[in-house]
Amino acid sequence: VIVVPVNLGPRSYRVLVGAGTLAQVGPELARLGAGRRAALVSDAVVGAAHGEPVRASLAGAGFEVAEVRVPEGEAAKTLATAERVWDAYLGHGLDRTSTVVALGGGAVGDLAGFTAATYMRGIGVIQVPTTLLAQVDASIGGKTAIDHPRAKNLIGAFHQPRAVVLDTQVLRTLPERQYRSGLAEVIKHGIVLDADYFALLEGSLGGLRARDGETLTRVIAGSCRLKAQVVEQDERESELRHVLNYGHTVGHAVEAATGFARFTHGEAVSLGIAAEAHLARRLGLAGPDTVARQVRLLEAVGLPVRGLGASPEAVLEALGRDKKARDGRVPFVLAPEIGRFRLVFDVPRAAVLETLADLG
Amino acid sequence: VIVVPVNLGPRSYRVLVGAGTLAQVGPELARLGAGRRAALVSDAVVGAAHGEPVRASLAGAGFEVAEVRVPEGEAAKTLATAERVWDAYLGHGLDRTSTVVALGGGAVGDLAGFTAATYMRGIGVIQVPTTLLAQVDASIGGKTAIDHPRAKNLIGAFHQPRAVVLDTQVLRTLPERQYRSGLAEVIKHGIVLDADYFALLEGSLGGLRARDGETLTRVIAGSCRLKAQVVEQDERESELRHVLNYGHTVGHAVEAATGFARFTHGEAVSLGIAAEAHLARRLGLAGPDTVARQVRLLEAVGLPVRGLGASPEAVLEALGRDKKARDGRVPFVLAPEIGRFRLVFDVPRAAVLETLADLG
Repeated sequence: VIVVPVNLGPRSYRVLVGAGTLAQVGPELARLGAGRRAALVSDAVVGAAHGEPVRASLAGAGFEVAEVRVPEGEAAKTLATAERVWDAYLGHGLDRTSTVVALGGGAVGDLAGFTAATYMRGIGVIQVPTTLLAQVDASIGGKTAIDHPRAKNLIGAFHQPRAVVLDTQVLRTLPERQYRSGLAEVIKHGIVLDADYFALLEGSLGGLRARDGETLTRVIAGSCRLKAQVVEQDERESELRHVLNYGHTVGHAVEAATGFARFTHGEAVSLGIAAEAHLARRLGLAGPDTVARQVRLLEAVGLPVRGLGASPEAVLEALGRDKKARDGRVPFVLAPEIGRFRLVFDVPRAAVLETLADLG
Repeated sequence: VIVVPVNLGPRSYRVLVGAGTLAQVGPELARLGAGRRAALVSDAVVGAAHGEPVRASLAGAGFEVAEVRVPEGEAAKTLATAERVWDAYLGHGLDRTSTVVALGGGAVGDLAGFTAATYMRGIGVIQVPTTLLAQVDASIGGKTAIDHPRAKNLIGAFHQPRAVVLDTQVLRTLPERQYRSGLAEVIKHGIVLDADYFALLEGSLGGLRARDGETLTRVIAGSCRLKAQVVEQDERESELRHVLNYGHTVGHAVEAATGFARFTHGEAVSLGIAAEAHLARRLGLAGPDTVARQVRLLEAVGLPVRGLGASPEAVLEALGRDKKARDGRVPFVLAPEIGRFRLVFDVPRAAVLETLADLG
């Protein structure tokens, strides 16, 4: 088990990464001195697949656990579900010393985190994400939210977890496409933050494809460490944290232009990384090798690097609707070389359009 | 105008107290470098009575102001209202740089503060409370909440305002009973926190009765300074902040035992202070003069100090349901002398019952 600390003063916590760590949830909560009651929030599928070791470890550590079921996927992130979950917390007698254990993908983590952030003005939450995407991305940093009918993640709060528990074994049963999607975020961390980590990924292809436990532990812990460094320097997402948007500016636009149906989030990010890599080259900011290594690694793990599924014009239009856009122009995070990033505000529309056209 | 700073590191803000400060809201927001959009949240009565100078000052400082109306009183603090308010923020194009201006009593401040705390994971709020109770109590400290059908303030967040603006002129039209209610909290601050401030109140009776502008400015600023000191030392209400519960333990029980209908909150707190003062005497913790001065000042401003409106047994039973109760016993904040407090955990039930019986 690798322990990654996240240092945020009084809101510090640690991330446990390893095989079989689901059984650590109870001991970790006991170590934190939390009150006796806990609510285990998950959907039916994840609860059936992975709930037992978590329940057992909590009971073994002396906690009284109430189960709270939420719908699968994004459907969990509604105000109606939040209301049901608050009711359940109250019904089960959760007080200010109680803890919410979020077991599931990113949506469960978001919903459980938000309801914990707002129940009695904030109670503790342990994030136990069961997808690779949530493990390396959503579970660290304290972003929680539910959706508004007209805007994703509109209602939310920053609420750091008290601990994050990542079990590599739960990834063994993850569908291939979902697993690969998570790798897009892993690769992103290497590109903009750490050349050594990127090289580690290049050298771990066999282990990654086989979902080897030791490889996953090392890779996930490395990714968490990089994300933790960013969060430590910018807890509330003012500036630096935008670096984590690498690949996401074009990625979100591709998702929007294809109706959020054709690509998984990670596939869209992979296309976004490819596009933004080529864009940096076109702007004279990055050399050909920097672009080639990114594209090669994405392809090697089976992620798409061309074929946007929409016209360049449609993607460009979606870019103009980006939350960060000013007068139709978005700032881009670009990678001048592997392990470094640069925020570029004045990217000409023509350069973006030509890059998108090249990717087809 | 007296400026009271609240020092909370990156969440620091200042409280402006004086006559006519409603006109300072716009300049204060400009000083903070907030984005151009703002939402003014108030109910119909307060909006009509006090909205104009706030609107004018915001417009004069270059802000685009959207008006958001909420129901009067506690009815504002529902999830349904919160949902409508979030919709309005989105409809008016509020973004992360926008600000919510909460103009009204405690309920408006709670609802507006909570919706600001959770919109886009937290946008700025300026509290502009229009009752004495909200000015000296709710507006400082960042507690925001809405009610659950089965529990008041169950859903909420700590979200410090970016500024607090207190205009003594709005108090001139406050109904007498509501005005007196606020004085109960003012007196409470003196009893448990500051003997000099308590003496200032004793010497300001004429000005307080006449609602004289200078007296109110001095008294309110002093009260804010005391509350700010407590909040600075205990931002998230772990221990010290319980001192502010003086008079509230019995006060809440009296409210509950009388169906929340007979007394205003401040009247119940006044009865609670009287009860807890006598309790300290009965326990041998306080001398007769300490009790007499508290009772005399409460009576002098027209607040009730005897006649609980319910049987001692009924109040005792309600005490056992207090959130802080353990095995039917609540910890009491008691005042051994004016300006000092002590947390007492093991108060015998008989002593409480006899004290309540004495108060009738």
